[in-house]
Amino acid sequence: MNQSQASEAVLSPHELEAALRDIGARRYHNLHPFHRRLHGGECTRDEVRAWALNRYCYQAAIPIKDATVLTRMPTADLRREWRRRIVDHDGSAPGDGGIARWLRLTEGLGLDRDYVESMRGALPATRFAVDAYVRFCAEKTLLEAIASSLTELFSPQIIGERLSGMLAHYDFVSADTMAYFTARPPQAAQDSAFALAYVLEHARTAERQQACLAALTFKTDVLWVQLDALWHAYVEGHLPPGAWRPDEREGLR
Amino acid sequence: MNQSQASEAVLSPHELEAALRDIGARRYHNLHPFHRRLHGGECTRDEVRAWALNRYCYQAAIPIKDATVLTRMPTADLRREWRRRIVDHDGSAPGDGGIARWLRLTEGLGLDRDYVESMRGALPATRFAVDAYVRFCAEKTLLEAIASSLTELFSPQIIGERLSGMLAHYDFVSADTMAYFTARPPQAAQDSAFALAYVLEHARTAERQQACLAALTFKTDVLWVQLDALWHAYVEGHLPPGAWRPDEREGLR
Repeated sequence: MNQSQASEAVLSPHELEAALRDIGARRYHNLHPFHRRLHGGECTRDEVRAWALNRYCYQAAIPIKDATVLTRMPTADLRREWRRRIVDHDGSAPGDGGIARWLRLTEGLGLDRDYVESMRGALPATRFAVDAYVRFCAEKTLLEAIASSLTELFSPQIIGERLSGMLAHYDFVSADTMAYFTARPPQAAQDSAFALAYVLEHARTAERQQACLAALTFKTDVLWVQLDALWHAYVEGHLPPGAWRPDEREGLR
Repeated sequence: MNQSQASEAVLSPHELEAALRDIGARRYHNLHPFHRRLHGGECTRDEVRAWALNRYCYQAAIPIKDATVLTRMPTADLRREWRRRIVDHDGSAPGDGGIARWLRLTEGLGLDRDYVESMRGALPATRFAVDAYVRFCAEKTLLEAIASSLTELFSPQIIGERLSGMLAHYDFVSADTMAYFTARPPQAAQDSAFALAYVLEHARTAERQQACLAALTFKTDVLWVQLDALWHAYVEGHLPPGAWRPDEREGLR
């Protein structure tokens, strides 16, 4: 937060919501060429594999991120609300939950489960971005951590495009392997409605409002960096040392 | 560290040094196409500006990284040795030291000093990689933090190539604006000789040796990611939201 931001005017809740949604309209990763390529059916099977392999790192970190948020919530009401996110991702039994559903996708794409879970073929840029997100939520204020989750305001639409586009274009995915995307939109809608209400209620000073806008901007960077790295490595073919190589057997079932 | 690595054989100091140097030979960023483009005279002035602007984030973080290492050193002898790194970067008076010399380069390239120092035009991938390095050194063992500095074993050569190549090819740099690179090699040689001796003396179990090799591998990722991001954004022209735009006035003097 710099001096000029802190001295800006206080926004009404309506104006703050519009400013948050404007960040999504300008910076959310549905605008990234890789997203269009993915749901438009232009990706090769190996590009889809690389996307799912890397995105696993993000999925696997979300409940850890949410646990760091949970540690800072002062009331049982808040913690119960937020705890649902951890349940959604980790499930209530083996094979259940968002991470397990993501692994169904990577397995359906022919990737070895242990290899995916080890994350050793993931792009370093993916790991650094995901770690930055977890740390952001652990180190910033609770309000900023909650604001950074607001990319979910924009996710039901991108997930809808992805689900229908991928099912229409790729014969190597199915409704079963894409189950993650069927389950996710209602969860995301419920989560983001709560998070938005919390932010609009608690960000009442210009400084807090600017911090929330910066938190959401940061989060869009976390998502964008991952698609930039995928594009550079797997579309342009500039594989960094150590990353999964489609031309080798390692990582495939 | 996984089970199979921990059960590997203990290396002799000579073998460990060879394994560390082999990581440099395979993964150091002198192998990256951007490095060749930079010292080969193929970069545009704006690409050199983007490189210097982003690399500033790394330079600015180094003394902070070294301070986190200093907090873990148990003896005055060790701390005096390591403290020299902070002096080298921060100097002993305003205008002195590696960071000030880096700012002489960015100013010589026509970049606005306040803009560079604000880091707001830097690529998110750069910031995430640099933050990952600082955090690695703060959270891992002292031995791993020291091992991660060993990329300096390989830096005198890259700096030599860069200095002569850039002076020969670009009329927008001079011996004065490139002073950082004249001062750096003897410092790096002294630093890396100490760090290598420390690692060879203290990494006497297979587990510690593998941790040192992993630390140096991690550090090569930190450097490589930065050049990948530069290439994607400024050579290929895929600018992420918020990054410095060569076609706009912001950031220039």
